[in-house]
Amino acid sequence: MTDFPAKLLAGYRNFMSGRYSDERERYRVLAETGQNPHTLLIACCDSRAAPETIFDCGPGELFVVRNVANMVPPFEPDGQFHATSAALEYAVEVLEIDNIVVMGHGRCGGIRAALDPSMSPLSPGDFIGRWMALVKPAAEQIQSNEFMTQAERQTALERVSIRNSIANLETFPFVKKRGEKGELSVHGAWFDISSGELWIMDSKGDFVRPDLTELPVQAEQASA
Amino acid sequence: MTDFPAKLLAGYRNFMSGRYSDERERYRVLAETGQNPHTLLIACCDSRAAPETIFDCGPGELFVVRNVANMVPPFEPDGQFHATSAALEYAVEVLEIDNIVVMGHGRCGGIRAALDPSMSPLSPGDFIGRWMALVKPAAEQIQSNEFMTQAERQTALERVSIRNSIANLETFPFVKKRGEKGELSVHGAWFDISSGELWIMDSKGDFVRPDLTELPVQAEQASA
Amino acid sequence: MTDFPAKLLAGYRNFMSGRYSDERERYRVLAETGQNPHTLLIACCDSRAAPETIFDCGPGELFVVRNVANMVPPFEPDGQFHATSAALEYAVEVLEIDNIVVMGHGRCGGIRAALDPSMSPLSPGDFIGRWMALVKPAAEQIQSNEFMTQAERQTALERVSIRNSIANLETFPFVKKRGEKGELSVHGAWFDISSGELWIMDSKGDFVRPDLTELPVQAEQASA
Amino acid sequence: MTDFPAKLLAGYRNFMSGRYSDERERYRVLAETGQNPHTLLIACCDSRAAPETIFDCGPGELFVVRNVANMVPPFEPDGQFHATSAALEYAVEVLEIDNIVVMGHGRCGGIRAALDPSMSPLSPGDFIGRWMALVKPAAEQIQSNEFMTQAERQTALERVSIRNSIANLETFPFVKKRGEKGELSVHGAWFDISSGELWIMDSKGDFVRPDLTELPVQAEQASA
Repeated sequence: MTDFPAKLLAGYRNFMSGRYSDERERYRVLAETGQNPHTLLIACCDSRAAPETIFDCGPGELFVVRNVANMVPPFEPDGQFHATSAALEYAVEVLEIDNIVVMGHGRCGGIRAALDPSMSPLSPGDFIGRWMALVKPAAEQIQSNEFMTQAERQTALERVSIRNSIANLETFPFVKKRGEKGELSVHGAWFDISSGELWIMDSKGDFVRPDLTELPVQAEQASA
Repeated sequence: MTDFPAKLLAGYRNFMSGRYSDERERYRVLAETGQNPHTLLIACCDSRAAPETIFDCGPGELFVVRNVANMVPPFEPDGQFHATSAALEYAVEVLEIDNIVVMGHGRCGGIRAALDPSMSPLSPGDFIGRWMALVKPAAEQIQSNEFMTQAERQTALERVSIRNSIANLETFPFVKKRGEKGELSVHGAWFDISSGELWIMDSKGDFVRPDLTELPVQAEQASA
Repeated sequence: MTDFPAKLLAGYRNFMSGRYSDERERYRVLAETGQNPHTLLIACCDSRAAPETIFDCGPGELFVVRNVANMVPPFEPDGQFHATSAALEYAVEVLEIDNIVVMGHGRCGGIRAALDPSMSPLSPGDFIGRWMALVKPAAEQIQSNEFMTQAERQTALERVSIRNSIANLETFPFVKKRGEKGELSVHGAWFDISSGELWIMDSKGDFVRPDLTELPVQAEQASA
Repeated sequence: MTDFPAKLLAGYRNFMSGRYSDERERYRVLAETGQNPHTLLIACCDSRAAPETIFDCGPGELFVVRNVANMVPPFEPDGQFHATSAALEYAVEVLEIDNIVVMGHGRCGGIRAALDPSMSPLSPGDFIGRWMALVKPAAEQIQSNEFMTQAERQTALERVSIRNSIANLETFPFVKKRGEKGELSVHGAWFDISSGELWIMDSKGDFVRPDLTELPVQAEQASA
C-alpha cells in the first residue's frame, strides 16, 4: 500500500473505467503518431479554471502552460531557465500550433497579491513578488485609483495581465514571424469562476461575451 | 463575429450546458469562499496528459503548474522571474496544500529533445535547450548508454526528470519545513499515454503500479 | 394641421388604441387618487435606456428623473435652482417612495465627454463641461490609467458615477433620515445597451448580475 | 440574493423575454452606431406620464429630460451645475436633434405646490420651493384670481409652465441659432392623465387637440 493520495488514485480509477475506456483507441493513436494540438493555452494554476474542463477538450487538443496569473514574460534570450518561453518555443517551432490563447480568470490570487501594497514576501526568495513584478506598473496605477472598488481593480488588472502577456508574446521573433505569415493567431479570454461566463478579447483589447448561437453545430466537437 | 477558435467556443458551449450546469453551485461557492485545493500538481504541457482528466478531478481540487517536462528548478533566490518557483511558493505558503505530485508521462517531447545531441536550438533564444539543461547531466549519461534502446532511454530520463524535480523541491526551505512538520507530502507519478497506465514512485524512487483494488470506495469522489 | 412631429402623433395614436385602451381604468384611478410610485428612478437622458421600458413598468410605478449621466449633485442648500434635488425632495418628502434607484448605462455620451480631456466646451456656457465636473476627479484618475482600454475606462467611470450619485444622495438629510428609519433603500444599477444585461450594485459597490431564476413568479407584475 | 426591488427585477425579466427579445438587433445596432434620436423630450418626473409610453416610442427615438413640472430654466452661463441646460446643450450640439417637445400634464404635483401659498418648505433646503420659483410670477397672479376654480388654476399654470419653458429655451443662443436656420423646431404638449387626451400647443400658444385622422398611416412607426 502506497501513501499516494487516495483521492487521486480513486479519481484515476474513475478515469480508467470511464473516459479512458471510451477513448482507448484515441489515446493509442495519439501515442503512436504523436500529439498535434491546435492550440497553446496559457492559463493560471488556479484549481477552479482548468482549460480542458472549460473548453471541454479531449486528449491531444490543448498544449497547456499553467503558471500563476497566466503570464508570459518578455523575450529574454539570456541563457537562464525560462519555463514559459521554453514551452512557447516548443509549441510554435515544433508543434506548429495554430492558435495561442491566454486565459485569465476572476478572483485570481496572483493578481490579488500584485494589488496588495502591504503584502510582505511569502518566503525569503519572494518568488511571487518577483513574478508578479511582470505587471507591477499596471498594478500600481490601478491600485492607486481610489474611485474603483477593490473587485473592479482586481478585474481590471486580470484583464491588463492578459493583454500584457499578449504584448509580450509579440516580442518573441518566432511568434511574430508566424503571425505575419498568417499561420498563427493570438487570442485572449477571461473566465468568470462564479458565473461560468467566458469573455473573449476583441481587436481593441476589450473583453466581450461571444455570441454562441452563431456557432455552427459540430457533429463531434472533441476531434483534434 | 469573433475570430476566436470556433472549436473552443463550441467546447465552451458544451461545458456550460453540461458540466457547469451540473456543478453551478460548486463553482459559485468556490468563487465566494476561495479555492482550497488539496494538491499541487506539476505536470507537462503535453496535450495528452491533462491532470484533471487523468485524476478525474473537479473544480477546486488541483492547483496545477504545467511546463515542458514537468520540471522544478532548484531554489534560486536571485531576483529573476521564476514561474514554477512562484507557483510553488504560492501553493505551499498561501494555499497550504497537503500534497505535491510531480507527474511525468511517456513519449515526452521535451525529454526527447534533451536526449538528442544533434538537436540545434529551436530559435536563437534556445529556450528549450536552456530549460532542458535542468536534466542535462542525466541526459548525457543515459544517451551515451549503448545497451539501452532509444525507447528505454526515453522512459529512463522521463523518470529521472521526476526524481530530479522532487530533489529540487526539497531545496526550497518552505517545502522542507512543512514536510518535516508532517504537513506536506511529495509524490511522483508517470502516465503511459498509450496504455493509460499510471505508475507511482515508491520510497526508493522506483515506479510501480498501484493496486487499485485496495482503495476504499468513496461515495463522492469529487469533493475538494 | 399642426407641425407637431407626425411620428410622435402616430405613436400617440398607437398608445390610445393600444396600451391606454387596455389600462383606461388604471389611468382614471391614478388621476383620481394621485400617484403613489414605489420607486424614484434617476436615469440618463439617453434614448436607448428608458427605465419604464427596461423595467417593464406601467403608469404609476416610477417617479423618474432623467439628466445627463444619471447624476445627483451633493446637497447644496444655496437658494439656486436644483432640478435633481427638487425632484428628490418631492419624491422623498411628499410621495414617500420606498426605493431610490440610480441607473447608469453603457456607452454613455456624458461619461465619454468627461473622459475626453481634449473636448472643448460645446457652447460658450459649457453646461456639459460644468455638469460632468461632478465626476471630474474620478474621470481624471481613470483617464490617466494607460493600461485600461478606452472602453474599460468608460465602463469604470459609468459605475463610479452611479456610486458617486449614491454617495451624494446620502448627503441629503431627509434621505439619510428615512434610510436610517428603514423606510427608504437606495440602489444602483447599470444597463448594457448592447446585450440587454442589467447589473446591480451590491453592498460593496460592485456590479453583479442578479439571479432572475430566484424571483417569485408574480401574478400581475405591473401593479403600483 | 440581493435586496434590489423584486418588482423591478421581475419587470426586467419581462423586458428580456419580451421587448428586448423582439428588438435584440435594434439594441445591438444602437449600441454599435450610437444613438440618433429625432427629439429631445422635456417631461415631468410624474409616474403617470412617461413619454415613451404616451408616444409609443422604441429605443433610440427620444432623448428625455425629466424634472419636476417639465421646466427649462433661463440661459445662465454662471459656472454652476445645470442638469437641464447640460442635457439641452448635449441634445442640440452633439446629437443635433430635430425637435424639442416640452410636455406637461394634468394634476402635476409641482404645479400644485407652486399654487399653494401656505405651503412650507418640504425640507430646510426648500429645493421644490426654489425650483418652482421659475414660474412664481405666473403662479401668484393665477392663484389670486378668485373667479377660476382650483382645477382651472391648476390647468392654467400647467400650460403657462410649458410656454415659460419654451420661452426660456429661446434664451439659449444655440437653440435660437439652429431654430433660425430651420434645423430645429420647438413644440409644447399637455397630457390629460385621466382621459388620455393629448393637447398640443399651436402658434398662438393655445392648446388644441390634434386631428389624428389626418395622419398618414406609417408602415413601421418605431424607426428612429
